[in-house]
Amino acid sequence: MKIEMEKLIAHLKAQGFIFQGSEIYGGLANSWDYGPLGAEIKAKLKKLWWGFFVKKNPHNLGLDSSIILNSKVWEASGHLRNFNDPLIDCKECKSRWRADKLIEEKFPELNVGGWTNQQLEEFITAKKILCPKCQKQSFTNIRQFALMFKTNQGVVEDEGSVVYLRPETAQGIFAQYKNCQRAMRKKLPFGIGQIGKSFRNEITPGNFIFRTREFEQMELEFFFAPSDNFDWFEYWLNQVQTFLKDVLKIHPNNFLVREHNKEELAHYAKRTVDIEFKYPFGTGELWGIAHRGDFDLSQHQKFSAQDLTYLDPNTNERYLPYVIEPSVGVERLMLAIFCQAYTEEAVENGERVVMKLPNNLVPYQVAVFPLQKQQNAAAEQLYEELLVDFDAVLDVTGNIGKRYRRQDAIGTPLCVTIDFDTETEKTVTVRDRDTMKQVKVALSELKNYLTTKL
Amino acid sequence: MKIEMEKLIAHLKAQGFIFQGSEIYGGLANSWDYGPLGAEIKAKLKKLWWGFFVKKNPHNLGLDSSIILNSKVWEASGHLRNFNDPLIDCKECKSRWRADKLIEEKFPELNVGGWTNQQLEEFITAKKILCPKCQKQSFTNIRQFALMFKTNQGVVEDEGSVVYLRPETAQGIFAQYKNCQRAMRKKLPFGIGQIGKSFRNEITPGNFIFRTREFEQMELEFFFAPSDNFDWFEYWLNQVQTFLKDVLKIHPNNFLVREHNKEELAHYAKRTVDIEFKYPFGTGELWGIAHRGDFDLSQHQKFSAQDLTYLDPNTNERYLPYVIEPSVGVERLMLAIFCQAYTEEAVENGERVVMKLPNNLVPYQVAVFPLQKQQNAAAEQLYEELLVDFDAVLDVTGNIGKRYRRQDAIGTPLCVTIDFDTETEKTVTVRDRDTMKQVKVALSELKNYLTTKL
Repeated sequence: MKIEMEKLIAHLKAQGFIFQGSEIYGGLANSWDYGPLGAEIKAKLKKLWWGFFVKKNPHNLGLDSSIILNSKVWEASGHLRNFNDPLIDCKECKSRWRADKLIEEKFPELNVGGWTNQQLEEFITAKKILCPKCQKQSFTNIRQFALMFKTNQGVVEDEGSVVYLRPETAQGIFAQYKNCQRAMRKKLPFGIGQIGKSFRNEITPGNFIFRTREFEQMELEFFFAPSDNFDWFEYWLNQVQTFLKDVLKIHPNNFLVREHNKEELAHYAKRTVDIEFKYPFGTGELWGIAHRGDFDLSQHQKFSAQDLTYLDPNTNERYLPYVIEPSVGVERLMLAIFCQAYTEEAVENGERVVMKLPNNLVPYQVAVFPLQKQQNAAAEQLYEELLVDFDAVLDVTGNIGKRYRRQDAIGTPLCVTIDFDTETEKTVTVRDRDTMKQVKVALSELKNYLTTKL
Repeated sequence: MKIEMEKLIAHLKAQGFIFQGSEIYGGLANSWDYGPLGAEIKAKLKKLWWGFFVKKNPHNLGLDSSIILNSKVWEASGHLRNFNDPLIDCKECKSRWRADKLIEEKFPELNVGGWTNQQLEEFITAKKILCPKCQKQSFTNIRQFALMFKTNQGVVEDEGSVVYLRPETAQGIFAQYKNCQRAMRKKLPFGIGQIGKSFRNEITPGNFIFRTREFEQMELEFFFAPSDNFDWFEYWLNQVQTFLKDVLKIHPNNFLVREHNKEELAHYAKRTVDIEFKYPFGTGELWGIAHRGDFDLSQHQKFSAQDLTYLDPNTNERYLPYVIEPSVGVERLMLAIFCQAYTEEAVENGERVVMKLPNNLVPYQVAVFPLQKQQNAAAEQLYEELLVDFDAVLDVTGNIGKRYRRQDAIGTPLCVTIDFDTETEKTVTVRDRDTMKQVKVALSELKNYLTTKL
């Protein structure tokens, strides 16, 4: 179902999922804060990833490395040299653009990822691409614009004190690969997973939370012997899809699996597949699975002058492991979840908006209502009882219909109402978000009923 | 029990709890990464805080705001003007010092927190305090050194693009207070909790993870009516102690409650209490509970020109709420937990190191061993079964005694051994970390047994 981004964003803001960052100060270019409901979904999503990819996978370990690393890490990884965007200015109106995006917007069938600056410039001239703002063609040459945020650490502001905010969590894993392997006495194959903030000074952030300068990643680096004949790439590609479909309940119709062709591949990459989600504004990368060979470890071995090889206890050979990297952005995944969950439905008295979130991602599992004011105390007591075992919320204001709509709008799967029968019959009314059906449940059976349903 | 920091740190590094940050590149001044075991404990600790202070507290909400905020936030909060350290240089040996720390190290009974630069300078001269490095007294005047990390966002590096890494998570809460209140239709009193990274460009980080430039905070801002007669300060002071004692099992002998005296209080603060932990290097702040009045909201109201008042539905009055802020650093809390858990014990054949972590904070709840190689397959199978419901680890190398020591060293409460009786009698041996006692448990009863014990 096609939804409008404007409507989705308005809904998420109004209900407390996502607010504009620094809103009272007029915001900050494309930054977003997660409100009470969004923060809870984000926490649950991260926990599900951590469970699936780290804790419950018998091969894998977790890690929590720093955002600010020794700058040599970025020298080794190539980010200091290569992690930048091709920028051009319009000489007429002084607006600033990404050369590659200018071309791709005019020629959506092209992928210019591997082009040199000269190729980009020549193409723009040859095809007479105009400045989108003033419609002139009068561009400067391309300058490379570094995407890493730079700051100074320590008391003296000089070259030696320059540090960067990590643009990806992956390099923190590579830098600690040897420590993890040694301390945990791990044999290959094994993986190291990490969740954390990354920062990219994007020139053109946009599409709501799809591309932001500050974002969170969930990355796994899976290490294995180059001679290992098992197809670990296929294994992780499958695991990612299993997680999307079975854990997050993302419908297979909503995403597609796109194999990178040879021209798109980085020089060291042996294979890359993107899982792309069908966002309302177009298809966009959700999850990248890349076979990075031994590129990263060999770079770190070279730049650190440390031996990062693995001594195979079976063959007694020393080698650098190969790496498969499944990498996903938390916010993109949340946006995919929101897009799929947001539903407008005709109902008896008009229309309702329902967030059809899966049970393991809802901010609240159960809402408790008193039917009328005289049941407030009983509702409060039941709410506090349920809070021990469930993510519960109490709602006492407005009529019941309004309260149902409100809980639909934030995705609460079950609403429990204390009504006139509660005192006499010891029952409550439980209403289902999706079917809107109501059933009477004995108070003594309520916890079991909720547990089964959730 | 007095422990040595050196021994604790060596233990945490060797076992995979904490590694030096960017270690293969010679590190980065006092930065630390959390290895597989530390990352898991950190995740569990944050989850416990989030549960206790946000999800299971009927008053409170969660939030997840950005690290980079509109710089006006820091203008309003006072951080741009006041958040800096008094720095002096030794003219002789060019070393650099914090003037306040120089004094406090010589005069530990003094608290110079509220002194002006002039007072600090005069005291240093009068008391003839020498440079700790070259033992001369030849200092420059005090310069104020800003503690916020500064970077540029966007394409142009100029004043307008300057942004800061947040030095605390609290201001993100104040900036979104109104949005949270409105979207969630909250009535006072209520609180907003948040967990996240903060950054302070400390001149003298140190004492392992006690003071680092990059760190994580768990902060709650609790809003209530100035006319509210309930003592919310006392309530949160008690809640914090309950959390420390009952949830994290921190022994009351290991911390103390210190009321700030009038001279220490910030001009806006109505009351501040520090919970201080008895670290091996001395008593240090663990958790601060501060009554901030309406200082923060009134500053943001002034600088944002937004109405941040609350309309009381009972009295129909408009006012700015008061705020109680219980604020704790994740790493300091972890250090406290590590210090209390680290235990050296004499045992039959020498000594063992045991991490006596509470069950809700252990990296692994249960370890599975085969007694000998022929039980490897059965152990692996049992491990994968237990992994569904428990945080389990499989250990197959070394003799049983060594494996027990290893699990003791990382705090695993229970070890399950598949032995010769397992096939015939359908039993396993379960060994307890603290008592070191072993019992036979029927395989069919194992999950129940573990659940009860954990």
